[in-house]
Formats: sequence, structure tokens, C-alpha cells
Amino acid sequence: MDRILDRIERPQDLRKLSTSELITLSAELREEIIDTVTKTGGHLGASLGAVELTLAIHRVYDAPKDKVVWDVGHQAYGHKLLTGRRDQFSTIRQYSGLSGFPLRSESEYDAFGVAHAGTSISAGLGMATAFDAQGSDARVVCVIGDGGLTCGMAFEALNQAGHLKKDLLVILNDNEWSISKNVGALSTYLTRLTSRPLYRRLEQDVWELLGRIPKAGDKAQEAAHRIKESLKNLLVPGVMFEELGFKYYGPIDGHNLQEVISTLEHLKHQGGPILLHAVTEKGKGYPFAPTSKTRAHGVSPPADPKKSAPAYTKVFGSTLVEMAARDPSIVAITAAMPDGTGTGEFAEAYPDRFFDVGIAEQHAVTFAAGLACEGMKPFCAIYSTFLQRAFDQVEHDVALQNLPVKFVLDRAGLVGDDGPTHHGVFDIAYLRVLPNFVIMSPKDENELRHMLYTMAQYHDGPIALRFPRGSGVGVSTDEALRVLPIGQAEPLREGDQVTLLGLGSMVHPCLDAAKLLEDEGISTGVVNARFVKPLDEELILELASRPGLLVTVEEAQRAAGFGSAVAELLQDREVDARILSIGIADEFIHHAKPEIQHRSVGLTAETIAARVAKQVRSAAPVAMRPSA
Amino acid sequence: MDRILDRIERPQDLRKLSTSELITLSAELREEIIDTVTKTGGHLGASLGAVELTLAIHRVYDAPKDKVVWDVGHQAYGHKLLTGRRDQFSTIRQYSGLSGFPLRSESEYDAFGVAHAGTSISAGLGMATAFDAQGSDARVVCVIGDGGLTCGMAFEALNQAGHLKKDLLVILNDNEWSISKNVGALSTYLTRLTSRPLYRRLEQDVWELLGRIPKAGDKAQEAAHRIKESLKNLLVPGVMFEELGFKYYGPIDGHNLQEVISTLEHLKHQGGPILLHAVTEKGKGYPFAPTSKTRAHGVSPPADPKKSAPAYTKVFGSTLVEMAARDPSIVAITAAMPDGTGTGEFAEAYPDRFFDVGIAEQHAVTFAAGLACEGMKPFCAIYSTFLQRAFDQVEHDVALQNLPVKFVLDRAGLVGDDGPTHHGVFDIAYLRVLPNFVIMSPKDENELRHMLYTMAQYHDGPIALRFPRGSGVGVSTDEALRVLPIGQAEPLREGDQVTLLGLGSMVHPCLDAAKLLEDEGISTGVVNARFVKPLDEELILELASRPGLLVTVEEAQRAAGFGSAVAELLQDREVDARILSIGIADEFIHHAKPEIQHRSVGLTAETIAARVAKQVRSAAPVAMRPSA
Repeated sequence: MDRILDRIERPQDLRKLSTSELITLSAELREEIIDTVTKTGGHLGASLGAVELTLAIHRVYDAPKDKVVWDVGHQAYGHKLLTGRRDQFSTIRQYSGLSGFPLRSESEYDAFGVAHAGTSISAGLGMATAFDAQGSDARVVCVIGDGGLTCGMAFEALNQAGHLKKDLLVILNDNEWSISKNVGALSTYLTRLTSRPLYRRLEQDVWELLGRIPKAGDKAQEAAHRIKESLKNLLVPGVMFEELGFKYYGPIDGHNLQEVISTLEHLKHQGGPILLHAVTEKGKGYPFAPTSKTRAHGVSPPADPKKSAPAYTKVFGSTLVEMAARDPSIVAITAAMPDGTGTGEFAEAYPDRFFDVGIAEQHAVTFAAGLACEGMKPFCAIYSTFLQRAFDQVEHDVALQNLPVKFVLDRAGLVGDDGPTHHGVFDIAYLRVLPNFVIMSPKDENELRHMLYTMAQYHDGPIALRFPRGSGVGVSTDEALRVLPIGQAEPLREGDQVTLLGLGSMVHPCLDAAKLLEDEGISTGVVNARFVKPLDEELILELASRPGLLVTVEEAQRAAGFGSAVAELLQDREVDARILSIGIADEFIHHAKPEIQHRSVGLTAETIAARVAKQVRSAAPVAMRPSA
Repeated sequence: MDRILDRIERPQDLRKLSTSELITLSAELREEIIDTVTKTGGHLGASLGAVELTLAIHRVYDAPKDKVVWDVGHQAYGHKLLTGRRDQFSTIRQYSGLSGFPLRSESEYDAFGVAHAGTSISAGLGMATAFDAQGSDARVVCVIGDGGLTCGMAFEALNQAGHLKKDLLVILNDNEWSISKNVGALSTYLTRLTSRPLYRRLEQDVWELLGRIPKAGDKAQEAAHRIKESLKNLLVPGVMFEELGFKYYGPIDGHNLQEVISTLEHLKHQGGPILLHAVTEKGKGYPFAPTSKTRAHGVSPPADPKKSAPAYTKVFGSTLVEMAARDPSIVAITAAMPDGTGTGEFAEAYPDRFFDVGIAEQHAVTFAAGLACEGMKPFCAIYSTFLQRAFDQVEHDVALQNLPVKFVLDRAGLVGDDGPTHHGVFDIAYLRVLPNFVIMSPKDENELRHMLYTMAQYHDGPIALRFPRGSGVGVSTDEALRVLPIGQAEPLREGDQVTLLGLGSMVHPCLDAAKLLEDEGISTGVVNARFVKPLDEELILELASRPGLLVTVEEAQRAAGFGSAVAELLQDREVDARILSIGIADEFIHHAKPEIQHRSVGLTAETIAARVAKQVRSAAPVAMRPSA
């Protein structure tokens, strides 16, 4: 098999190829992406849809001198294959392999690390502004999806870019849905642009009309000319972008390689901010794509048959539907992730009570605050990492007003293959610093159900629930939902020498660690903390007053985390206790399977037991050592 | 003086008034606002500009059943005067008096608490959605400035509102600048709308042209009709809003009371999302307004003559200019606050290196990241509370990529009259949880200068500097700038029984507290912490190993704060020390003079000394008590 792809070591090699060779290469890229990603898992649809855009950009622009900023980065697999990473491509999203996203530390061709949506125009504008200041003729190309454009920060960036007038090309990769179907007015607008019936009809009418104007009147001719000019200026599609100071080009067929290349060659020599609207088909070339939209977004590697427990996400989704049947004030909000957050089932059951706001977490939270003001019970389902986007709204609009908004933070903890852009490890710090908040975390899927019910019945202020990515632990679930007492922990196991105070996903590893420690002769108790805030002060103070070691264990940054909250309590009450806090050290954790990540950060039963045993022994070396 | 204003107890009273009485009332409102605010201090310009809008809204709508959401809320003084708070108005922004902002807990007429810009449409849409679900006919009116519209979240909200089609009136109060002059493309667009030459000319031309079409051709007539319709649909000003699904009305003269009232009466009975564009003059009626734009935004009460030390803000601004003269890679970024952040001086000296991005903190941070990628030194000057808007960008775009962006957080700590929406008390928690960050805080204006220089010379990653609102401590400043060693604290005073480890603004109160403690016979040392991250581990471990009490003092939330970081260090190193952490308790602090706030939260020299003395005595009651 003599592939053209195998001869491409760098983007410059594309310049030697004829158009027909480039078209062959586009097929090879698709094949390579499909072959690899169906094995490794990853984001297939976006990359398949962007093959021709990728080839055209790297054919026309001169990376790495010119900068290509991929918004989100799901679409950058082709870019990785063309920029010297073909041989490593099979390692994508694997431990010590390529990242699933562009990464500055991975390649000089990755101009900006991305993953959260809507950042590309801001970053690209910064680069373009730097080049302008430095007198460099390097060019900047941002590629953003129609979903990314719904992010407020993308609008903020357009607003400044249209004003600054630096040279910047923004390619709108319009595949008509981001992860799920786009839902905002902008989406409708883009659809109008791509169909353009009004523009085309008007244009035709005007010419027809102008042809009928009698030659006589000079004034009429002049008026006709002015109208024509005005129509040209005003009725071009993309008036919204034009009004923001961008020159709008398009829409073009993003799969017509020749058209994309010739358009880029033309635009490369234009100054100022330009928006090129390219229409593409997500998942193009993937056999399942047209009928399986969600599948086209991302695929998972073959499932592990051991894992039969339902995913936390699924348990959340079905419990929400169950509660909503009896409580008409329950509404659900997602920021463009009905499937990812498990709210899809709710959306089907209660379409009028379901709100997909687009990739707009800021608005999602304040919208929820408005709903809560008027007596609704908004469940705001946002991944832990994405709620960071709305930290100010969580503080200023919800916590400060003490509004009963319910935050459901999926993907809290280490997320595996997606890597550090997606870990939900900062939420404890950024939420527990806020007055008025209740923060919970369930030890298993059954407790998740009761916590959701507890949230629904809690009216005194904001309440958040964090749970990890992936499957529950496989316990059976109670049919009847019950309210858990706010701020009450759950002792699970008694022990004299050590008490493990585990939070959420760490409770079961703590139970396993306790057994390992018992095997080593260390008597170990376990408490399910349940609440980060308010803490079960009475129980924790009692535990701390015992002679043994108190160990907090959490799947979050150790800095400013749950263990830190426990330490603050003991310090403020002047309780002198031996404490060990186990959490994630002060660094970003690379992508890998969750098992590898948990082991590397010390959050498996074995690593917890080993660390505790070491501390116990170091504190009392003589008593603990075998007498031999 | 028989004022109409004195007869207005609730908005319904406005319905009894004639237009001429309402106009008289508008003058009385202006007089009352000017008289009071020039004494108390506050935001004069916005409220004066919104007098007629306020009267018209409360005349036409039925608050509190109908909800009025004021964006930012600076313009809501008239609203407060008309909604039963006239008698308390002279207490505005004073301790235990009215808040400077709408506040749900203050009045049933304050539908939503506001202060940070751009939240009103999201909150209002949430309310409108709730009313729709509940079958209520209550109406929602949001009033947002042209500055607030540059916030990404406002765009996110428009995007969903245009899609949801709930009944919602958004009044764009366009006074052509927010706090400073608006700078983005949107601002240019709004200016075009308000001048409308193209629309007016086109309209005229079209009618003229259509008049000349011979009656004969049916097809031409039909085409003409279609054009007319298309023009009506497309060429109305506000096409951008129309494209987002809003019906656009305006622009109207926001000071023509009769026009505003009749427009609102018409719009009240329209369904769906509507944007009414009202043009107003900020500061209207204030004698200084036309020539003194900044003064019109906010006024301060008569200055305290004791305070002769320069403001931290000013020292930052001039030091930045000083450094920029020698370092062309230094650029400065503000989010619509050149004066507030002290970057105005830089803007004048280096207009090409200064970037006002609008009220768009998210974009500001990622724009800075892009600049840093290409070798510039971006100083991002954003108040501590407003940087919350960009927490995700700080984490995902800057910290994760370890980019050397320089964050200058003014207003860190308690801010006084503006109250809880503006306190910068969460920044330590939300920044120190992020790997790669350096976080500093200067004890005085001289150290601020050296820290700024240290930031400029630091290339290894993100670095943040937090300092309080208000004046420095009055020290003389060194002419030569020097680099402070990263992570090195500064011992200032030795003592045997207690060491106060103060951060930033708390160092001088600690020095004063030490004297008070010495007077009580408690030997007290003081260390200037300088760094929240990395901590001076060596020194802190040494201090902790001493027999006395170690006390951390910070002007930030105690939860997850600096003291918590110190406790984590000692715990991780298994150092058993007596520590007391003094910070702000887990609650929101009401508006008041900073002195009152500091006293109430225990951050004055006296309160620090008293708390430390109590702890010292309780720990060693016999040794410490006088022998009598």
C-alpha cells in the first residue's frame, strides 16, 4: 500500500501535491482516522468533517510560522496526522501517547492548547496582535464550530477583533450541530445564511425591477444605483458578522477541496478580520454518521464487560425524570450536553421543562437563578470542569442571593482519556469558599439517588452534588427516595488505629484500603463524609479526639480541598489531631485510563493503604513493626 | 416645598399623575439624586440618565408583580426612590443603610440582585420562563446598558431568548459609554443604528423609485411589493437583534417621557422577545456631566484629608508606564476599566500597547494568553471580583499551558461601600488551587512596585498580584525597581510567644497588633508573607517549630485561603504546631465603610491583637495571667 499520507512529514509537503493527489489524501486521512479511532476511542465526527479544511489550511498557510488555532480541538486529528505525528497516532488518548487535543507541549504545530469551547478567537487575536506589534507577517487562522460560536467569550472576541482590525482569519466550521443539535437563535441564523432564499430572491427581484425603470429620469437612475450599493452592503449574507466588523465570505462547501483552497489563497492576502463560513458534514465518510449523530461525535473503544453497573450519569438522568413526575416545578438545564449530562431522558419526557442553552454555562447559571427566584426548582447539570466557566455567576447570582439552584456536577474527579482539560478537580475549592453553599458527594449510585431527592427537597440555598465519570459501584438501589440530613456523615466501619474519612468516589476505595490495612494488622475505620459543606462537625471532632490517625481522602486537588476544610475545622476548634490528607498533588494530571491516573496520584485502595500504613508506622515505629 | 415625589409611596401612585406632573417628578427625582449622592457618594451618571426610563417603566408595568431587572444596577437609584425607599435614600451605601445596588433582601421591588454586568437578560429570561410554566401573566423588563451588552453572557442570553420566544422586554439603555468609552465593534454598530443615515436614505430612495415605476407591468408591481416587504424586514435598524430572534424597536429618545411611555404601552401587549433601543445621556441634569464624563459615572463623598498616601491603583499605573518605557514587550489589558484599574496612564503613554476589550473578562484572559504565546508580556488588570468571570480561562488557557500572563488584581479584600458584590475575597481560593501559579501580595505601595517588576521579569508561568482598594500606607518608594525572590517571605520583627504571618494588606495591621500585644506583655514577631504560592516553606516550618503560637492573617475568606495553605504545609510535613488562622468567616459582608467592615470581621490591629491575646491566654492560662 503506497499511501500519499506516508510521504507527508510536514505541512509543506502538501504543496508538492496535485489537486487529485490531495483528494486521494483526504480519503486516506479519513481511513486512517476511522481505523485508529474506532480502536482507541475518541472524537471521530469532528475530525472527519474537517479533513478538507485541514488539508487546505496546511496547503495554503505556512505552519508553524503561521498559527492555526483549533477551537475545542476535537477536529484536529487530521492536523496531527499532517504535522509529523502520524507514527504516534495510534497512541492517541492513551497513557504517554498523543493527547486527544492540540497541546503546545506536544508539537510546535499546536499553536494553542484547547478543549473547552469558544477560546480560539480570543487566543488567535492575541497572537495576531503580537505579530502586529512585532512587525511579523505571520498569519493566524482560527477554526471554530457553530457550537463554539454560542459561547459568550467567542462573541466577546469577535467584538474586539472587529474593532482592532488586526489580520485574523476565522473559519466558521458549520456542521449544524455541535455535540448535540444547536438550539439558539444563532443556529437558526446560520441555517438561514446557508439557505439564503431571501437574499437570492431579493437580488433577482432588484435586477428585474431595475431593468424596468425608464431610462429617462436621472434621479431615478441615481436612486437605483444607491439602492443597488446599499443592497450589496446590507443584504450580503453574514450581515451580523459584517456589523461586528468582519468581512464575511461564504458560505462555501467545506468538502470541496479545490474551492476551499482557492478561497483561502484569496483570503490569505486580505487584511483585517475575516470570517469564512464553511459548511461541512460532521462524521463525513464514517459509515454510521448520517443515522447516528451522537455516535459520530465520539466513539468509545470496546466496552469492558466487567462493568455492568449503570453509569452515574444514567442514574442521575432517570432519577430526575422520576422526581419530575411528582414535582412539576423541577426543570433541567444543560449547556449543549443533553446526552453527556444524562438529561436527554428528561428532555424527551418533559420537553417544555428542559432547557439546552447552548455552550453557555454563564447564562445557564443565571438563567437558573432567575427560575429559582420565581419558585421553580432548576437542576443545572454541568460537568465540574465546565462549571468553571460560570464561577462568577455561581458566586454573584446564586450564592450571594442564596437562591435554591441545584448544581449537578458530573465528571468530578479524574476523567481519563480526555485528560487535564476535562478533570473536575477544582470544584471543591471554588465552591466551598462560597458562603451559603451545600456540597455533597455520593459513595455509590444508590446514594446519588437519595442526594438528588435531598436536593429537590432543599429550599434554603444553593446545593451542589459532585460525582465521577463512569459506572457506579454496582449496588442495588432503593425504590423509595429519602432525604439525607444535611451535613451528616455516615460511619461505615469501626477501627482503632486509623479512620479513613472518604468523600464520594473515594469511599469504596477507602473500604478496600481498610481491609488491606487490617490484613497488615492496622485496625481501620471508614466514614462516608457525604458532605464537603457543611461538614459533620460533631462526628469529625469526635473522630479527631480519638488517639488514632484521621485520614481524609478525596478525588480533587488536595490544595484548598475537602481535607483542607477538615483541617480548618480542627484548627479553629483547637483540636490537636493527627491528620493525613490524601488528594491530588499540585500538578495537572496527564491523560490516561482512569485506573492509571488513580494509581499515579495515589487514589486506589492499594496506594491509600500503603500511604496510611507508612504514616502509621513512621509515627509509632516500634509498636507497629513485627517483633521478629 | 410640596413635592410630587413625596406623594409617591409605590409605583402605582404614578398612574394618577398627568404627563406634566410626571415631567415635574422627573426633575424632582434628579434633584433628589444629585443632592443625596453628592453627599453620600455613589453612581450618579447612570441613575440620572435613566430617570425617564424608570418613571415610564413603573408607570406602565405593575411591579412587584411584574419584574424589573436592572443590569449592573447603578441606574436604579430612581427606582429605589419610587418603590417605598425615599425616606431611607440618604442612607444609601452607608452602614446598615440602603445598598447601592438592587437587592432582593432589601425590597420586593428588587427582582434580582445585580452589580457585575451582563446578568439581567439571563435572569429575566429565567423569570419569564417560570411565569410561562406557571401560567402567570406577569411581565419581565430588563434594562441593560450598551456596555453590558459587550458581556459574553448577555449574548448567550439573547441567543437563548431569541430561540425560546418567551415574553421578555429588554430595554437597551444606550448612553454610548459604559464606565469608560465603549470600544468594541458592537459600540460602533449601535452608533450606526442611532444615526441611521443608511436606513433613512434607503427608505426615501425606495419610495421615490417605486413612485416612478410605470403602472403597467404586473410583475414589476409584484417585485416592488416584495422588495418593500424585504426592506421592511431586513433594513430596519437592529438587524443584528432581529437576526437573533428579537423584535427591535427604536431608537427612541430615552428622555422623552411621553415617547417612552407610549412605546412601552404599545410593547406591553406584544408577545415574544423584544429589544427596545433607548438613547439616553449619562449624567443628564448634572451640571458637571457634559464635560466630566468620568465624574458623571460615580462621585465620591468629600475626601478624607488624612489620606495623603497614593492609591495602590495609581502606583500600579505609574509603575507599569515606567517599566514599559524600557520593555517594549509589556502590554496592558483592561476589561472596560482603564481608570478603575489605573491603566489609563498607560493607555495615554502607549495607546498601541493598550487593550480595552469591553466588559469581557473571559476574552481578556485568553487574549492575554495568546499574546503571551508569542512573546509579549501581558499585564491583565482586572479587579479581584471581576476576574471570577474568567476563572475557567485562567485555569484552562493560562495555568494549564503555564503561560506567563501577569494578573493584577485590584480591590482584593473588602471594598467598602459597594458591598458584597465587589469584595475581592475569593481570589486566594480560586487561584491557589491551580497548579503553576505564583500569587503575591504587597505590604505597601513600595513593595507593590517591586512585585510588579518581579512579575515583569518572571517568565516561568502565570503570576498574580493582589492588593486592596484605597491608599497605600504612606511609605516612601525606592527609585530602583528590584526582583523579589519568588517564594521568600520577609521577617519584620522578632518575638517569642507569637508570630504574626501577615499577607499583603494585613502586614501593617499585624505590626500594629504586635505593638498592642507587647503592651500586654506578649512578645510578638511579625513576618510579611509576600507569597501565597509558593509559600516560604523553610521559614514557615522554622516558625512552626518554635514553641509559640503561629498566626496567619489575611484579608480574604478564611475557607480555602492563605492560612489554610499554611495549615496544609504543616500537616503534610507532619509538623505539630499551634496555629491560629485569621480571615473572613464563611459569610457575605454587607456594605459599609472599610474601617467598619475590617472591625466587624476582625481584621484591624485591635481585633487581631484581642483574638491572639485570648488564644495565648486560654492556651496557657496560668503563665499568662498577671500574678495578682
